[in-house]
Amino acid sequence: MSLLNAPHHDGSIGLVPPGPHAAGEAVPVTVKVPKAAGVTGVWLRTMRDGEQRLTRARLKRPGQFQDTYVADVVVHNEPSQYRFLLQAPDMPGGYQWLNGAGAHGHDVGDDADFRLTTATPPPAWVGAGTVYQVFPDRFARSARADARQLPDWAIPMAWSAEPAPLAPLTGKQIAGGDLDGIAERLDHLVDLGATTLYMTPFFPGQSNHRYDAASFCAVDPILGGDEALARLTAAAHAKGLRVMGDLTSNHCGKGHEWFQRALANPASPEHGMFLWAGAGGVPEAGADIHPKYVPAYVSWLGHHSLPKLDWANEHVRRRMVTDDDSAIAHWLAEPFNLDGWRIDVANMTGRYGKTDKTLEVARLIRERAEQVRPDAAIIAEHFFDYTRDLPGNGWHAAMNYAGFSRPAWGWLADPGEEGKHFGLPIPFARTPGRAMVAAMRDFASRVPWQVAAAQWNILGSHDTMRVRSRFGTAQNVELAAALMFTYLGTPMLFAGDECGVNGQNGEHSRVTMAWEQAATGGPRWDRDTHAVIRSLARLRRDVGALATGGLRWAVADDEAVAYLRETPQERILVVIARNAWHGATLPRWVLGPEAPELLFGGSFVDTPSLDVTDDGLRLEATGPAVGIWRLA
Amino acid sequence: MSLLNAPHHDGSIGLVPPGPHAAGEAVPVTVKVPKAAGVTGVWLRTMRDGEQRLTRARLKRPGQFQDTYVADVVVHNEPSQYRFLLQAPDMPGGYQWLNGAGAHGHDVGDDADFRLTTATPPPAWVGAGTVYQVFPDRFARSARADARQLPDWAIPMAWSAEPAPLAPLTGKQIAGGDLDGIAERLDHLVDLGATTLYMTPFFPGQSNHRYDAASFCAVDPILGGDEALARLTAAAHAKGLRVMGDLTSNHCGKGHEWFQRALANPASPEHGMFLWAGAGGVPEAGADIHPKYVPAYVSWLGHHSLPKLDWANEHVRRRMVTDDDSAIAHWLAEPFNLDGWRIDVANMTGRYGKTDKTLEVARLIRERAEQVRPDAAIIAEHFFDYTRDLPGNGWHAAMNYAGFSRPAWGWLADPGEEGKHFGLPIPFARTPGRAMVAAMRDFASRVPWQVAAAQWNILGSHDTMRVRSRFGTAQNVELAAALMFTYLGTPMLFAGDECGVNGQNGEHSRVTMAWEQAATGGPRWDRDTHAVIRSLARLRRDVGALATGGLRWAVADDEAVAYLRETPQERILVVIARNAWHGATLPRWVLGPEAPELLFGGSFVDTPSLDVTDDGLRLEATGPAVGIWRLA
Repeated sequence: MSLLNAPHHDGSIGLVPPGPHAAGEAVPVTVKVPKAAGVTGVWLRTMRDGEQRLTRARLKRPGQFQDTYVADVVVHNEPSQYRFLLQAPDMPGGYQWLNGAGAHGHDVGDDADFRLTTATPPPAWVGAGTVYQVFPDRFARSARADARQLPDWAIPMAWSAEPAPLAPLTGKQIAGGDLDGIAERLDHLVDLGATTLYMTPFFPGQSNHRYDAASFCAVDPILGGDEALARLTAAAHAKGLRVMGDLTSNHCGKGHEWFQRALANPASPEHGMFLWAGAGGVPEAGADIHPKYVPAYVSWLGHHSLPKLDWANEHVRRRMVTDDDSAIAHWLAEPFNLDGWRIDVANMTGRYGKTDKTLEVARLIRERAEQVRPDAAIIAEHFFDYTRDLPGNGWHAAMNYAGFSRPAWGWLADPGEEGKHFGLPIPFARTPGRAMVAAMRDFASRVPWQVAAAQWNILGSHDTMRVRSRFGTAQNVELAAALMFTYLGTPMLFAGDECGVNGQNGEHSRVTMAWEQAATGGPRWDRDTHAVIRSLARLRRDVGALATGGLRWAVADDEAVAYLRETPQERILVVIARNAWHGATLPRWVLGPEAPELLFGGSFVDTPSLDVTDDGLRLEATGPAVGIWRLA
Repeated sequence: MSLLNAPHHDGSIGLVPPGPHAAGEAVPVTVKVPKAAGVTGVWLRTMRDGEQRLTRARLKRPGQFQDTYVADVVVHNEPSQYRFLLQAPDMPGGYQWLNGAGAHGHDVGDDADFRLTTATPPPAWVGAGTVYQVFPDRFARSARADARQLPDWAIPMAWSAEPAPLAPLTGKQIAGGDLDGIAERLDHLVDLGATTLYMTPFFPGQSNHRYDAASFCAVDPILGGDEALARLTAAAHAKGLRVMGDLTSNHCGKGHEWFQRALANPASPEHGMFLWAGAGGVPEAGADIHPKYVPAYVSWLGHHSLPKLDWANEHVRRRMVTDDDSAIAHWLAEPFNLDGWRIDVANMTGRYGKTDKTLEVARLIRERAEQVRPDAAIIAEHFFDYTRDLPGNGWHAAMNYAGFSRPAWGWLADPGEEGKHFGLPIPFARTPGRAMVAAMRDFASRVPWQVAAAQWNILGSHDTMRVRSRFGTAQNVELAAALMFTYLGTPMLFAGDECGVNGQNGEHSRVTMAWEQAATGGPRWDRDTHAVIRSLARLRRDVGALATGGLRWAVADDEAVAYLRETPQERILVVIARNAWHGATLPRWVLGPEAPELLFGGSFVDTPSLDVTDDGLRLEATGPAVGIWRLA
């Protein structure tokens, strides 16, 4: 039976008026109840100051196949949570709860309740189209770069070389890309359909990745310095692109001016900005304290090169956030005009032992950013369960490794891949489609809709193996890309993945762009893959329902998944089969007045068959297939 | 297949050393992995400061049927959460996560992770045996009561009368029970097997329930006054019983001295203790503001007689908690010596609009209580999802309506019952056993084990219909009672339920005890039901594994459930079938060296058959049945 026979609600524009919502506001929320669900009554259940309230929903529009009920949620708490009680006499127990994770035949906790927040939604541009991630040293090199002197620690790497996958070369190889190089290649992003340029850090450090900042006050001279950044953002804005930077809020580099002063002088204000072993509740030893260094300090995963900042310290808050010229504020203002920050290691920022200031720090950073630039975006790096960190009024959204990447990697894993699950010490195996959908629903349901709709969905980044290496074949990449570009949230593409480059781990994946192969194709520029990604990214940019539509699951079979993206104006049906698939029949009501319009069919793979029958819409696939249709 | 073929971990004494755990401590945690689970490797997954860490678990003891793995959780955060990664090549995806809710074939969020806390566990006496709830006006009447004058609002009710189920009489009928009456009947509690006496409020008010306190500084004179309370606690302690009071922390009565002063003088300190409509972020109108009263104020669910306290106010904190003679402290000290408090409407206490100080208040109250009486217990009333309110260092535990009562009510609902689900506007229907177990696991898994093991499990209270009315028959009551007295947590019995009295709602259920029928039986004293409850309550008190054992689910079928309660010393098997049941076979390893010993078999219902076969332990029932065995 198709999942489209189940009642449905989400926070999208057709079902909930867009936020922010004011305290005291009665917000009408709409639930769709297919006749096939056997529901005889619908109640809204809210929690007000910790107490349950039940209100009967109004039957707004009876339909031939589907009824529409409406009820008012009065915004009161932050967030204001709600779910629906469905009277269903033929179900075991006679009732179901409908929350963000679906319908349940037993009592469930509140974590997956729908919720309204008085927080402003993420800026609309975050969801407008694809984020294109650039690792500045590897993207493009301007003529200006030739004149620059490399620092002592750098090991020059030829543009055509393959990056080292393992230490000691990793981190030290410099190919010499720079910000003016990026500015010269912005048309590549526009042509692809990207709408935001996100760059990994541009601060000086002692590595090619610059997550070990030596200062937050300057752009690395070998990237072109401050002026180059101002030139780049101006050029990008002129082309309608947004630009985001990358800030390490959890730690800085050992070479950072703050840490050097702290080391030199225990009486300095800077000394209090770090967590010293054996002082102030920090133990003498621990997994995050490198045993060899004296004085010892807490560092990122015990790497002594990355001392952890103590967010309980006033100087950290001031210099990072609240000062006029803080790290957060300086680069959002003229003349640099960044549109926002990706926050590195946001999952650990402000967390140490019993202290958990992560949410407080997130709010501080976001409020400050919005002061400088009202439509600034703050996106958190988070590989794990981010739901407690994303109540709606802190980080706008997160990198969605937990709720998108890992489920998708599992479902479409290359069966021949000898690698490991990302971060897990066990071999890959393909997970069934229903496992992927269960994980996706679990994570999406536990954040406000406006956050879920802004999450950065990622198939690969500078921290992972390359998409092509992970999925093994161009066919498999096409399936994964179709999922990423149509699923709820914002697709994030690591530069080079559109060209089908390979890379076995985060370090090895930081390959340069082979611009010289663009016109003719080549081993690092697969023109056919580029065409597939370009079609999908443009579709994502141009089809409103993919940017702002609801998400309604239609099929969660082991070999295939299907879902609707819906706004009041249009409905998009996405079908992805990883293998031959026995198919499913969607109810007739999904059909619009006109015949379905195919927006994207398989390129490397087939298009699933779609037949209108007396029973409904019959889907089937004889092998790997992808199809994206407009239904109305 | 029995659930006993799945890997298992919980926080019980055989698998985790008892807390409290100190920061930095490496706590060895044990997981049991049946061979049938097909697991080839076990890893411990912890989160440290927001980052995942994986450590290979050590194979401690290979077994013929079940392997034992151990890994160390280093206590660092509060709480320190962990789960297990199971490599299972034959499962779809090749791996499973084991958390408190069971094993999952896809990624899941952290909410159901196991967790260690540095908080002290609830005092051991909380879990030692049954809590016996007394509504003081209805339990027993001493000779002293005859001399007392009833207040003007009171409507005398004959001891033998049936309480009114609906307004206007409800709340005003006084049968005249008193504290000395309770003291005279303590042997009834001891004989039954109860270990704690919990009384609903003894403060003066304008109702028989006294949740509308007029003062927190005195015991109601018609209950016997302060001296009667001191006599009662002394008598109870002499018999080895603990005594708990009941405090309204969310609100007081409109007649309370604080509120009267606040009303009379807006410049008084008391005025700031309440939430006035239109002032300080409170709206002019709302679901919790009665429209008819001027000046208007926030009250409990809009009942103007119960003005809500503002826990942001210093005077509320002082007078309720921190002052030498605060409501919390006064009654825990000499000469009253209460052992703890049940906190009324704890779910709303400190919550209003955007303000959520519930956890802060819980910690404040608990710390203060422990100052006065180190083994004091603080138990929260909570009908809904309490998991966010119970991190381990606030309320010790809650009334487990969400995680026990409602699931049990659903599974054993009287099929002939015309009533409604408690709090839900829909008719009853029986839920399948697997739905009950899913709900129980959901709620139990999202609090620390030490909290789950102390939760008050309730079949009926002064706020619900009577157990006998709800379940319909003595047979059905026996099944429900067997569940309550053997499930994880502390059973709470409302006085009279052991006698099989009836009552259709909370008000109607507040029947008096028919002491005169005790010896011979009668319509309000079912001697057979009393014998069943007495056997079960004594078993709960005397069998160590029921008080401190782990909980391992063996069967979750629609018609029957079974589980083990395990300590290193003993293992108890509980089997409950609500109807004829096709049965299940438990693996052979559950058997101890000796034959199972039947501790309790059905009285009104059958005992399930239990046969040792070559395949294992074969269970079956030809009709409703209950059996409790000691396995080793």
